[in-house]
Amino acid sequence: IANKDGHALRELLKEYHFADVAELLEELNSDEATYLIKLLKSKITSEALMELDEDLRERILENLTPTEIAQELEELDTDDAADIIAELDDKTQKEVIDKIIDEEHAADIVELLNYDEDTAGALMAKELVQVKETWTVAGCVREMRRQAENVTRVHSIYVTNREGKLTGRLSLKDLLTASEKTKISEIFIPKVDYVTVHTDNEEVARIMQKYDLEAIPVVDENGVLVGRITIDDIVDFIKEEAEKDYQMAAGISQDVEADDSIIALTRARLPWLFLGLLGGVGAAAIMGGFEEVLNNHAILLLFTPLIAAMAGNVGVQSSAIIVQGLANDDVKGSIGNRLIKEMLLAALNGAALATVLFFFIWGWKGTIDYGLSISVSLFVVIIVAGIIGTFIPLFLHKRGIDPAIATGPFITTSNDIFGILIYLYIAKLILGI
Amino acid sequence: IANKDGHALRELLKEYHFADVAELLEELNSDEATYLIKLLKSKITSEALMELDEDLRERILENLTPTEIAQELEELDTDDAADIIAELDDKTQKEVIDKIIDEEHAADIVELLNYDEDTAGALMAKELVQVKETWTVAGCVREMRRQAENVTRVHSIYVTNREGKLTGRLSLKDLLTASEKTKISEIFIPKVDYVTVHTDNEEVARIMQKYDLEAIPVVDENGVLVGRITIDDIVDFIKEEAEKDYQMAAGISQDVEADDSIIALTRARLPWLFLGLLGGVGAAAIMGGFEEVLNNHAILLLFTPLIAAMAGNVGVQSSAIIVQGLANDDVKGSIGNRLIKEMLLAALNGAALATVLFFFIWGWKGTIDYGLSISVSLFVVIIVAGIIGTFIPLFLHKRGIDPAIATGPFITTSNDIFGILIYLYIAKLILGI
Repeated sequence: IANKDGHALRELLKEYHFADVAELLEELNSDEATYLIKLLKSKITSEALMELDEDLRERILENLTPTEIAQELEELDTDDAADIIAELDDKTQKEVIDKIIDEEHAADIVELLNYDEDTAGALMAKELVQVKETWTVAGCVREMRRQAENVTRVHSIYVTNREGKLTGRLSLKDLLTASEKTKISEIFIPKVDYVTVHTDNEEVARIMQKYDLEAIPVVDENGVLVGRITIDDIVDFIKEEAEKDYQMAAGISQDVEADDSIIALTRARLPWLFLGLLGGVGAAAIMGGFEEVLNNHAILLLFTPLIAAMAGNVGVQSSAIIVQGLANDDVKGSIGNRLIKEMLLAALNGAALATVLFFFIWGWKGTIDYGLSISVSLFVVIIVAGIIGTFIPLFLHKRGIDPAIATGPFITTSNDIFGILIYLYIAKLILGI
Repeated sequence: IANKDGHALRELLKEYHFADVAELLEELNSDEATYLIKLLKSKITSEALMELDEDLRERILENLTPTEIAQELEELDTDDAADIIAELDDKTQKEVIDKIIDEEHAADIVELLNYDEDTAGALMAKELVQVKETWTVAGCVREMRRQAENVTRVHSIYVTNREGKLTGRLSLKDLLTASEKTKISEIFIPKVDYVTVHTDNEEVARIMQKYDLEAIPVVDENGVLVGRITIDDIVDFIKEEAEKDYQMAAGISQDVEADDSIIALTRARLPWLFLGLLGGVGAAAIMGGFEEVLNNHAILLLFTPLIAAMAGNVGVQSSAIIVQGLANDDVKGSIGNRLIKEMLLAALNGAALATVLFFFIWGWKGTIDYGLSISVSLFVVIIVAGIIGTFIPLFLHKRGIDPAIATGPFITTSNDIFGILIYLYIAKLILGI
């Protein structure tokens, strides 16, 4: 379709939803996509741009003039516009902002760009419906009509005092049922949850989820209402956080997707593999130190992969439960209690697994000695692995470090080494060598 | 506080938000919690009950009479009430429903209980604001006031025709700006996204996210408007899905939390550990089959944990990327292309890692032969591991099986075995034994 131009295309896509246009754009190459963006009205394309993958959007924006970008941004809410503009280089940013015709809109965007990336200030939009305590219901409805033009969806009506400080909210129901002459101060609800511009995104997500809020007002240091955050921004944030933790656990250190380039994927994956290599070399060195023992008891070597794998698996399980618990804010109580619980749990699992392994080795090799020493080691290794997997994320969390880095390759590798070390020592002890 | 009774407690907690009451309840034992639930007004406690952990809620509900449960449910939206009632046994369900005074509310709950668990029907609430095409703006506002009493938050105003079929939606802005005499049919927007009662939850989440919806109407087979789903229910669903995938990857098969009992945690963890044990035993058996080779070339055994670990790490990385891509619906194109890409990627990473390993072994043992054979194996193992990690989830997905089960212990274990097998064969080949 996109090679033979024409306004038939425009007619065809006029009724499309922006999310569908975005899907279409994802399937075109960047030249075709740019052509389509220029062809269509910015009302649709601006929202579609928001939905695109960051890389594709970057390539499209490179092909647009500052004026064209400015036209797209005019149609967007301030928070989305600020997100897009933040992706441009400093020089282009300035040029684009100069080209935005609506000066208030431009000033709002610049304000949002000034907040720290992970705070409510950067996440919020300036568009909101705000009424003054002193207004009457009739005046309020009149003002709302005017304000509503800039606001795509009315989430909540916030009430402020003369200085613009947030004092409460107004329920639509009360507004509809009150008589026209009633003062807002008589019917508004003087209790409202809010965050400040400096509140951390994670904290905003936590509050909105806890109280099931669909929008939350944002105030500055002086309590003046400056913006609002809606649940759809938080949904994206929650999803990204969950995906980040998952990728960390899988040993992928940057936010990559299946469709990213091989170079980007390598950059995200190779460091963790190097860590694993280091662990494996470490394990080999340890085993090399026990060479005499192993020369006479080669059977022990057959089970080193098993010991390493079990140590890794148990460690990953324990750390995943703790990391998830910490993310959901429901890990309470002392570290000591956690460790005791994990020890009991690991002992229970370890005993079951060690018993099975004992009978297997006995049946295979016919020796009780080896069976005993290997399964006792497995038992101990599982307990130690569980404790390490529980302790490290809790420790990192206490120190203010994201515990998610302690899952996956990190815990697997350290448990591999510890596991093999313990295994060989215990075997030596039990076999009396 | 909770042992010495008194209405001081009631006074104290009157102003609390239900989410805070829920937090308080979580910290009490079930007797104290039950006492508090009975003491406080159901308006607060019903919402607090919803926020509780399932186990605790179950224990509290056991201590309440059907009448008391019914009182709690009266205060809840139909979707939440249906969720709670679904946790009770059949007999108690009937008794509780009989005790609900508001018959319409009871009938709505019964209707919701009849839908399949994972469909929009079970997720939706019956409370919504509905206006008829034929009404005037004035009549509409009057009706909305009445309906709004049952609806905690007005998300959207849905427009239906004479038969109750969904025909569109009404923007609050248009309602506010239109004159009182205007007919709804003149100002409503005849385009509205919707789902049917049988739509899968995952599909509902996908649509609401794609189109950034905060609520979506639900219609029955005949297009009649029967309910609506709000974004907060979907947020919970998205979070649960992401957590489930993460737990699967970590080898935890049921939805457990750090605070669950040791028995529950063991049930979720032990099966995967057994799988790992099986893999380890398999690896040992394979290595046993190469015993002659290994007796003369013991150095090879020192690196089996390294090979197994690397095979596991690469497999987990590849599968995690594919599983996450599938969950986000952005893995497109043929399986063949994916595999070629992953092969190139693995070859790149493998070459880098194998080179490092080669120089390490050369430096340590001073032999080029061993260094060469071990690092070439590592290279091949990484490629095979990457291909397995990419192929299995794609294959499962094609067959309609949740690809998340292919991450974590499953992929680690199978890659351990394949890895060691390949390793030993290649070593044999290169060393000429």
